[in-house]
Amino acid sequence: MIAEIISVGTELLLGQIVNTDATFIAKRLAEVGINSYYQTVVGDNPVRLAEALKIAEERSQLLILTGGLGPTQDDVTKGTVADYLDEELVMDEVALKYIKRYFDLSGRVMTDNNQKQALYFKNGRSFPNRNGHAVGTFIQKGAHAYLLVPGPPKELTLMFDTEVLPFLETLIDDDRQYILSKTLRFFGIGESDLATKLNTFIESQTNPTIAPYAGDYEVTLRVTAAGVDANECQVLLEQTISEVLEIVGDYYYGEGEKNSLANTVCELLLEKNITISAAESLTGGLFQSTLISVPGASNYFHGGIVSYNDAIKKNVLGVPAHVLKEYGAVSQECAMAMADEVRRLFQTDIGISFTGVAGPLELEGEPPGTVWIGLSMSDGTVTAQKYRFMHGRTGNRERSVMQGLDIVRRALK
Amino acid sequence: MIAEIISVGTELLLGQIVNTDATFIAKRLAEVGINSYYQTVVGDNPVRLAEALKIAEERSQLLILTGGLGPTQDDVTKGTVADYLDEELVMDEVALKYIKRYFDLSGRVMTDNNQKQALYFKNGRSFPNRNGHAVGTFIQKGAHAYLLVPGPPKELTLMFDTEVLPFLETLIDDDRQYILSKTLRFFGIGESDLATKLNTFIESQTNPTIAPYAGDYEVTLRVTAAGVDANECQVLLEQTISEVLEIVGDYYYGEGEKNSLANTVCELLLEKNITISAAESLTGGLFQSTLISVPGASNYFHGGIVSYNDAIKKNVLGVPAHVLKEYGAVSQECAMAMADEVRRLFQTDIGISFTGVAGPLELEGEPPGTVWIGLSMSDGTVTAQKYRFMHGRTGNRERSVMQGLDIVRRALK
Repeated sequence: MIAEIISVGTELLLGQIVNTDATFIAKRLAEVGINSYYQTVVGDNPVRLAEALKIAEERSQLLILTGGLGPTQDDVTKGTVADYLDEELVMDEVALKYIKRYFDLSGRVMTDNNQKQALYFKNGRSFPNRNGHAVGTFIQKGAHAYLLVPGPPKELTLMFDTEVLPFLETLIDDDRQYILSKTLRFFGIGESDLATKLNTFIESQTNPTIAPYAGDYEVTLRVTAAGVDANECQVLLEQTISEVLEIVGDYYYGEGEKNSLANTVCELLLEKNITISAAESLTGGLFQSTLISVPGASNYFHGGIVSYNDAIKKNVLGVPAHVLKEYGAVSQECAMAMADEVRRLFQTDIGISFTGVAGPLELEGEPPGTVWIGLSMSDGTVTAQKYRFMHGRTGNRERSVMQGLDIVRRALK
Repeated sequence: MIAEIISVGTELLLGQIVNTDATFIAKRLAEVGINSYYQTVVGDNPVRLAEALKIAEERSQLLILTGGLGPTQDDVTKGTVADYLDEELVMDEVALKYIKRYFDLSGRVMTDNNQKQALYFKNGRSFPNRNGHAVGTFIQKGAHAYLLVPGPPKELTLMFDTEVLPFLETLIDDDRQYILSKTLRFFGIGESDLATKLNTFIESQTNPTIAPYAGDYEVTLRVTAAGVDANECQVLLEQTISEVLEIVGDYYYGEGEKNSLANTVCELLLEKNITISAAESLTGGLFQSTLISVPGASNYFHGGIVSYNDAIKKNVLGVPAHVLKEYGAVSQECAMAMADEVRRLFQTDIGISFTGVAGPLELEGEPPGTVWIGLSMSDGTVTAQKYRFMHGRTGNRERSVMQGLDIVRRALK
């Protein structure tokens, strides 16, 4: 079965948004072993969309359409495909209730055009949308199958992973190879550096294959094994992974595509029953909001202070005036004092602090990207490390947060 | 002249990279008034690429191919197009010298396959690559024109803006229309609701056209005018925009594709010389880190407290014990006390607070998505508003932050 992704949206043709939907779906298709030779983008235009369908049918069997399922007039995908196939659309009553309930609860008026979001192919099936209103729908007709999924990435990705993909897998020929992948996550090493370290190993590998990807301030390795069943794949994966970790294990923090450094740190805090607080200057709350993005944070996270100027550092956080006067805010001494004070004030086992220069201008004679991260532990140890990042204003902050998480992770190991 | 972007690269079909090249080129084409009805992605496969060319010629006149111009075996674009058109490729001697010099300077050996990067259409022209080695090339044949540009974004964007676009503009009919767009941004109204309110207006509009898009917790309207020159477009836009704002102006917060609610609020704070601090519970620092994402935040943002449990609310922030005891943390009284205390502690003009239930579990008998946002002003006014969001754990937080920004915006207007 060859698949083709058809992205519907004039905003794509105008370059107003990036087509991350196609990337996401393409990745998932590759993972389950469904090939794809073409992708198409077409505007919110029924005639041209029908043309795209005709062309895609000549070369692909599974047509996956994204976008154009919303409530407005320029959302034409469902209607166009239904007309093209001469198939009827019916109301998904459960989805309709869900939409109505949303409008009731949020106290907003549900306009009639919202109803069309609950339509699906009568001779096909519907996929619920847990992050929005437009249901996905699927229909098989002769040699071709048509899958329609919503365009907003949050809606698409959740629906695809939880509803669509398990369904698609039931359609795939049973004699295909079993594929199993694992994603290993690394922090503190660049992609090319990781690739170089693993170079001979990657080149000599045919099964499992190893593919490095550069993420946001981290690198992942996707290890993919093919075999007759899950068990064979599992054995192959474990062997290869242990060889990989022998070479670059020092940078490895965890496994899994949805995993994150924050997640790993939070698991460690929970497991070891250790509490944490934070004092943030240049990161302005980003470390704390990253921590609480992991469910269950209230078990180990008490809170913290964003001290965005010297007066707050002194008066609210309690950094001694002489520290700020003698060493400045961007200093080892200030980072250590911030970490120590926040730990005492919030009565936690660990206090972490961030102070530095996000940019674009320098501060206290230090160039943008200069960051001190302080750590205070309940045993009385107080340390601070200096970094020099070069990721721009926003990137320097994000990178600081990742570095802080890694510092906590290493302290907890 | 209708253009079609054909992106060549198996890595796109596998979802390994995002097709930002197509977005970039599409945007530039729209800016100079070149229409585009389709985009295609095809792998590094000569037969399928030739098929894509044939299809594109049926519906477009300018075929823009990105990617596959490099030195390796899977870089097939130039050779395939040359064979397809039966056109000869010749060496760009200047480009070849440039490549040789690069290898000399970096002390690396230039392998023979690098030479093919300097090839261009003998009956066409070559575009130099200032960020890499593969030249771009263009050829006109009959009714169709073929433009080949490199895939790496740094190489593509520089070449396109400095070499290709000025050249393309010479090809465009002089009587082409001038296109001007403006993006209006709205918060507090859904896409379907906005579309309904503007329904008759949108339907009757032909120039300018109006297209609504749903963003993250906000809606944008793209208003696009066509005319003989910038001035005519500007007049058309202003007229339409003022009519739009008469209907839905209450939800309008600003204009511009890169604008944001945070940006608008920060501009207002700066302009009115008003300082702000925040006390965050369920949002855990996200409001503050959103504020500081706008450059210049230290002019009006002093900092804040993340109070993730009752003890911190009481001991660090100073919320009276009886408030927590009598009303609980998820209450109007607590939100008001938090906003007021943080404003005093951080000595700012405005104090804002967030307390509520992110989810997935309920808290103090309140369902997930229940959020109180408090506001304390220097004139002594303290208020709090209750919301019920339904965006899931992370979404409820993000939406709370947006709502908080809107509350500040309305207070400052």
